[in-house]
Amino acid sequence: MTIERKHTRDRMSQIVIHGDTVYLAGQVAMDAAGQPAGAQMRNILEIIDGLLDEAGSGNAKILSATIWLSDIRDFDAINEAWDAWIPQGHAPARACVEAKLAMTKYTVEVGIIAAR
Amino acid sequence: MTIERKHTRDRMSQIVIHGDTVYLAGQVAMDAAGQPAGAQMRNILEIIDGLLDEAGSGNAKILSATIWLSDIRDFDAINEAWDAWIPQGHAPARACVEAKLAMTKYTVEVGIIAAR
Amino acid sequence: MTIERKHTRDRMSQIVIHGDTVYLAGQVAMDAAGQPAGAQMRNILEIIDGLLDEAGSGNAKILSATIWLSDIRDFDAINEAWDAWIPQGHAPARACVEAKLAMTKYTVEVGIIAAR
Repeated sequence: MTIERKHTRDRMSQIVIHGDTVYLAGQVAMDAAGQPAGAQMRNILEIIDGLLDEAGSGNAKILSATIWLSDIRDFDAINEAWDAWIPQGHAPARACVEAKLAMTKYTVEVGIIAAR
Repeated sequence: MTIERKHTRDRMSQIVIHGDTVYLAGQVAMDAAGQPAGAQMRNILEIIDGLLDEAGSGNAKILSATIWLSDIRDFDAINEAWDAWIPQGHAPARACVEAKLAMTKYTVEVGIIAAR
Repeated sequence: MTIERKHTRDRMSQIVIHGDTVYLAGQVAMDAAGQPAGAQMRNILEIIDGLLDEAGSGNAKILSATIWLSDIRDFDAINEAWDAWIPQGHAPARACVEAKLAMTKYTVEVGIIAAR
């Protein structure tokens, strides 16, 4: 099976495609500083839409999502954005846990495995 | 490759099957309140047995497991349940780390990728 | 698709191969006690090289990596080792978050999904 990588730098690729399976790097918000978790999540989901589209996938084809929150008390805020974004009948397997992220301005990070 | 989802709600599916690979949502215990980590783990493993069975998989076909503990000091307690549950010769790749979970009553959460 | 397991004990296998996909157990450093995060990371990457080689894979075929740091302030130290190790043009999808690990002597743990 072929491996295809997109947006590849020294540290990571934003997209890695292995056969019919797509792995995205953990996504964080752009312009995150000062943005509350709900706003960061909406931005992340827009970024994921773009990456999945580029990979020949889409948000109806997500297999598994891992969500890391720097403060688990943001659980409801990020879920509001998440639940509205997932196409009905196509929700992935998901886990959401608390973890400090690479920079303190990031309050949410989302990892995705999808099909294409 | 086909995608099949089971127990699908707005937020997540408990089971997602992509070809021969099965992704389960992060599993937590039922009636978790006041239960110690070992008891929660035993309950989670029963739930996973049911989900894997439904997916045409089983605990001898787990590929990778991620275990999150709200207190890493429960490591030995959950391992006792885990080690007894894994069929000999069929242990998956595994990582176990500490993370606060969505509700404080949950002390253990388990994510599974399996074959079928 | 076949499942092949290597270095299998009661709790986990260090390598699980499912068709063309390889899952490694979360890797930690040997002789970790007292070693700073950068040194632990270099040791982990050597261990991963050996495991991937054994699986018919290699560090140019990593699909996704999850890095857990017991102290996120070690981010730069582990990245120095990581960035030097990744073959140019072959960087995987990656997420790096903070999490306490099974033993306090471990400051870094790395989970890998690779192709072969």
